Amino acid sequence: MSSEWLLEEDPFAPIAYRYAVKRRLHSSRSAFQLIEVYETDFFGRMLVLDNVVQLTERDEFLYHEMLAHVPLHSYLSPERVLIIGGGDGGTLREVLKHPSVTRAVLVELDPEVITVAKRFFPSLAGSFDSPRVEVVNGDGVAFLRETGEQFDAILVDSTDPVGPAQALSSPEFFRSAADALSESGLFAMQTESLHFHVEFVNRVQASLKEYFPSVRLYSIPVATYAGNWWTFSLASKQELSDRPQRPPVTETRIYGEAVHRWAFVPKEALDSMTRLGSGPYRA
Amino acid sequence: MSSEWLLEEDPFAPIAYRYAVKRRLHSSRSAFQLIEVYETDFFGRMLVLDNVVQLTERDEFLYHEMLAHVPLHSYLSPERVLIIGGGDGGTLREVLKHPSVTRAVLVELDPEVITVAKRFFPSLAGSFDSPRVEVVNGDGVAFLRETGEQFDAILVDSTDPVGPAQALSSPEFFRSAADALSESGLFAMQTESLHFHVEFVNRVQASLKEYFPSVRLYSIPVATYAGNWWTFSLASKQELSDRPQRPPVTETRIYGEAVHRWAFVPKEALDSMTRLGSGPYRA
Repeated sequence: MSSEWLLEEDPFAPIAYRYAVKRRLHSSRSAFQLIEVYETDFFGRMLVLDNVVQLTERDEFLYHEMLAHVPLHSYLSPERVLIIGGGDGGTLREVLKHPSVTRAVLVELDPEVITVAKRFFPSLAGSFDSPRVEVVNGDGVAFLRETGEQFDAILVDSTDPVGPAQALSSPEFFRSAADALSESGLFAMQTESLHFHVEFVNRVQASLKEYFPSVRLYSIPVATYAGNWWTFSLASKQELSDRPQRPPVTETRIYGEAVHRWAFVPKEALDSMTRLGSGPYRA
Repeated sequence: MSSEWLLEEDPFAPIAYRYAVKRRLHSSRSAFQLIEVYETDFFGRMLVLDNVVQLTERDEFLYHEMLAHVPLHSYLSPERVLIIGGGDGGTLREVLKHPSVTRAVLVELDPEVITVAKRFFPSLAGSFDSPRVEVVNGDGVAFLRETGEQFDAILVDSTDPVGPAQALSSPEFFRSAADALSESGLFAMQTESLHFHVEFVNRVQASLKEYFPSVRLYSIPVATYAGNWWTFSLASKQELSDRPQRPPVTETRIYGEAVHRWAFVPKEALDSMTRLGSGPYRA
């Protein structure tokens, strides 16, 4: 039985979501944000940053598998992968399922997120100590500008594009990403929802096209992200196919060849949501 | 600016949605339910039955176009169409976009819904007076059992499967539907969400297979339906393709050939959500 409610008033969404929670397991204020963990019946544990749900144990696989596996399967044999954000460890867990990956660098601004994830989300945060992993505590924008290293994939696993995460959708950031990618490398980032944030989606897609000849949009519905029709922008200096380039890794829960192909949003669907826009309704 | 909140506590969903509303335009209690209309900035007007959001002006096209056009484009030249429920008129509006349709019968249990729709939702309810339309006030289950008429398509546009709508997913109802369909006729119904109601989805799919050799599942994400990854079950006595059988009608906002094909849920995605189930989270 629920003993309290969590009302998620996402400033970036026109619907507030209310969850029945059994109890709050953790609350701390880091240098960057309020970090909370709740226990719920239906969704399992939930990670909440500044009052916005970041993941639930129940459905995090949808987001993390799609963010990691669509780009990584668009590459024949990815070796070096950079994750920006993703302090919960979910994207890293998926990346390491690719045996070809010899080095995964995760750049997280807020080390307290990693500490909390290790304590409360062992099913996500079990990969930080892998010998293939380097964790960098710092700002992803600065890291990417200054690194001399080349990566085969760069995955941006960020919070909503407000506050520190805003710089992760700037033209300068996309230019740095293009510079740090190997010849046929992949760039992927979460780009919010088609229902509530289509203007952001289109701005990112247009901006990426300045630095990458091939830019695509794919999606998966996530019930616990406001707007739910969750998108990812995928970009490459090489022509992107909508098919995986090799047999899928096997330890996935939803990702597979048919899901990979299906995830790409038809142009007529994006056009339809674009006409609707992100602002108040107009008849 | 919003002056009040609407908290939608759908008993059939683990998340309650809170909407900012400018004002309530209408409230009445019919013989069957509480009928309310709210005005909002972001979603336009909203129709709410027994505290559950049924449609918003902003996004109703997603649901109505997919419910009507996927089945009707799976048929070469549909003439007689039966709609069960759908008192707001949105499905009827889409059905009449097919010039081949000479007769559309709409069976609505609650005539008060039609009255309210005509008054507050003219963009949906403008088709009731078409000479091609017959409106029947009554119970869809009884209608289908007793009609001697054959239809090329039967579309079930119902509320959540609780109360009166429960009988619209019974084996008896599906048998009546199969009996009332022409040789290559199509049956389609809304079947709730993959996130919150996958057991219902699978129960309907399995039950339909008892009466129809070919049964498929398609979906569209709808932000204002709890669970949002909204599904439709499509069934036929003939083998169903996942492609439209003719060029799409032109006056649609999202439906088209690519969306038709994309809407069919890959088996691996349904299997994944099925393993997750509809109950509390288990690690």
